[in-house]
Amino acid sequence: MITLTSDFGSPYPAAMKGVILQEADTRLVDVTHDLPRQDVRAAAFWCRETIPYFPPAVHLVVVDPGVGTDRDAIVIRVDNHVLIGPDNGVLRPVARRLSEHASDGLPRQDDRLEYFRYDYTEPQSATFHGRDVFAPAAAVIHDHGIASLETLDAVTSISATATVQCEFPSATINADSATAEGEVLVTDDFGNVITNIPGSFLTGRTGEMGTVGTTTARVTSTFTGVDTGEPLLTIGSHGFVECDVNHGRGTEAFELTTEDTVQITF
Amino acid sequence: MITLTSDFGSPYPAAMKGVILQEADTRLVDVTHDLPRQDVRAAAFWCRETIPYFPPAVHLVVVDPGVGTDRDAIVIRVDNHVLIGPDNGVLRPVARRLSEHASDGLPRQDDRLEYFRYDYTEPQSATFHGRDVFAPAAAVIHDHGIASLETLDAVTSISATATVQCEFPSATINADSATAEGEVLVTDDFGNVITNIPGSFLTGRTGEMGTVGTTTARVTSTFTGVDTGEPLLTIGSHGFVECDVNHGRGTEAFELTTEDTVQITF
Amino acid sequence: MITLTSDFGSPYPAAMKGVILQEADTRLVDVTHDLPRQDVRAAAFWCRETIPYFPPAVHLVVVDPGVGTDRDAIVIRVDNHVLIGPDNGVLRPVARRLSEHASDGLPRQDDRLEYFRYDYTEPQSATFHGRDVFAPAAAVIHDHGIASLETLDAVTSISATATVQCEFPSATINADSATAEGEVLVTDDFGNVITNIPGSFLTGRTGEMGTVGTTTARVTSTFTGVDTGEPLLTIGSHGFVECDVNHGRGTEAFELTTEDTVQITF
Repeated sequence: MITLTSDFGSPYPAAMKGVILQEADTRLVDVTHDLPRQDVRAAAFWCRETIPYFPPAVHLVVVDPGVGTDRDAIVIRVDNHVLIGPDNGVLRPVARRLSEHASDGLPRQDDRLEYFRYDYTEPQSATFHGRDVFAPAAAVIHDHGIASLETLDAVTSISATATVQCEFPSATINADSATAEGEVLVTDDFGNVITNIPGSFLTGRTGEMGTVGTTTARVTSTFTGVDTGEPLLTIGSHGFVECDVNHGRGTEAFELTTEDTVQITF
Repeated sequence: MITLTSDFGSPYPAAMKGVILQEADTRLVDVTHDLPRQDVRAAAFWCRETIPYFPPAVHLVVVDPGVGTDRDAIVIRVDNHVLIGPDNGVLRPVARRLSEHASDGLPRQDDRLEYFRYDYTEPQSATFHGRDVFAPAAAVIHDHGIASLETLDAVTSISATATVQCEFPSATINADSATAEGEVLVTDDFGNVITNIPGSFLTGRTGEMGTVGTTTARVTSTFTGVDTGEPLLTIGSHGFVECDVNHGRGTEAFELTTEDTVQITF
Repeated sequence: MITLTSDFGSPYPAAMKGVILQEADTRLVDVTHDLPRQDVRAAAFWCRETIPYFPPAVHLVVVDPGVGTDRDAIVIRVDNHVLIGPDNGVLRPVARRLSEHASDGLPRQDDRLEYFRYDYTEPQSATFHGRDVFAPAAAVIHDHGIASLETLDAVTSISATATVQCEFPSATINADSATAEGEVLVTDDFGNVITNIPGSFLTGRTGEMGTVGTTTARVTSTFTGVDTGEPLLTIGSHGFVECDVNHGRGTEAFELTTEDTVQITF
């Protein structure tokens, strides 16, 4: 199985699929091709929240604002999963999450991730490495086998510190637990505002009213915990505090978008 | 085969696919994930107009404004098809349509549909049952086999009347057949306005001019029956009267959107 | 394998997939269903730029502004590829490109393409031939076998000249090579403006400033060759000159859209 993730929209992913299918007779599954364009941090977030649900596979992830520069192509192996993409930080958070999901149930350490550089010849087009570099590489790795990845000539083992890091910002919860300050990590297609404030900040507060900027919203465990069109605060499916609206868009009610600062006060 | 239908946009459906593929090694086919958000009636319409074209499969349909409340998960079996989703009325119209398509050619009665409740444990996240409840259930049902569905512990046979109904509104055609009054059921990505007025209302009227609000439009069997940019009335592919525009958007020319009242006069 | 391409958006492609899967147990791959609506030339461009990357398959392409009229359904065979769709010019450019990619490495002539008419009975609905005519035809052709296509009753060999042509406009480069004049063929989801001016016009000009209308932009081989938000001219992945913006939309910076005239001066 090869999964595909990008910010390419349509129809560029089709060229990647064609290239892969020329080489690899395997199942292809789209994770998404509608990631926010060239937003490395949002890509890192969404990969972490989706790819770990898949069974072992080669995961091709191409969000690549530095396409055509000398940034490396990297590969991270986590057990029977392989992630491949540009070295810009997108892959590290999902790799760590995959290691936490490891099937043996043991706590997995960050240093159990295996990093590789994938050497490629600069293709004729400098602007579509998804098609010309990463799709062929994913097919080769799939056919060669994840377990013997390092026997490929193009593959060189490297250290984690040799790769680009992408860290999510930290949220702070003040000493009396009445105020949390964080940031909007991403918004989703429903208009839900997903912050980096741990969901635990809302634990025990169901029914209380919290203030976010000029908006006051009830803490609820379901969208229908408030009337239609009303704002709410909830622990979203990613485990973080979300600023949402029942049958509406949190982005509008709370006037928040990606990277905005969020302060919640009770 | 498992088909997937939702209003999730992107990338949430990927998490559902990953969960399914962990359990079931089967073909996955997306019906759509771009249904109008949280619109039960539109979902019921589009499921009825697409799913019956598929061969026997498990059809997972998650449009779920009541996610996290005590609404049931239900399963409807129609011959070799199984539909699974929240109990909110979305599944009934497609189930009835599937029964009409039955392969034995016999007229099928509504009461030949078999209804089941699917019991689940409330998952940690109250807002993404698509991933945490319905996707695993679809995989289990697929692997267990549609024919022996009721031998699953989680499955309890129930009566049709125990489920939520979703009825489409009726259109009326006046006694002299010169006027029909109905409602816009949905609009599509082309901007075609799909009403609930039976297409038969236009039979024998090709070439005539009908009036819809302040717009006068010709009855035609093809888009090119009028000039580019001109409005038209036609029997759409769903069998209903549509208010469309050749190379344009009926929603704009007729100023109509979902749930609007439509009166057509000749 | 059957690939699917259309301007249908969602959810209409699902009905085509269901119809195909009733007949053909084969891999389905979406090329795209988000082509610009009813734009034959854009469809011809995108098919040419994506489908040739695929291994041999039946390629179903339905962009069909003339649906329900007496336009033919045609089939073009190129080696082990078959293209099928309405006879409106969409298929010819991709067929020619496929012939250039032929696996035997021989230069392929246009007259090595084989053209067929696919006879069909007018279905009940005049507005969804994708579902009612082309999807079943693709399934039949797939199951019957590409090699023996002409033994199907519905299939009649025809000459190339009996089919509708779709030609892309030509660009002109003036004698001193300082000015090129062409047209915008398409724009993509990144807002990149893809012209019909051959990329070779920019060869040897990296770092120079070119003028497009009132915009001056640097020639660069990568997006990051200019600062964030700055316009650039580059040889895109299709081999043509593109008017793009690093981390932005060329459509906005250059105020250009499909079919606009483009003059580039150095």
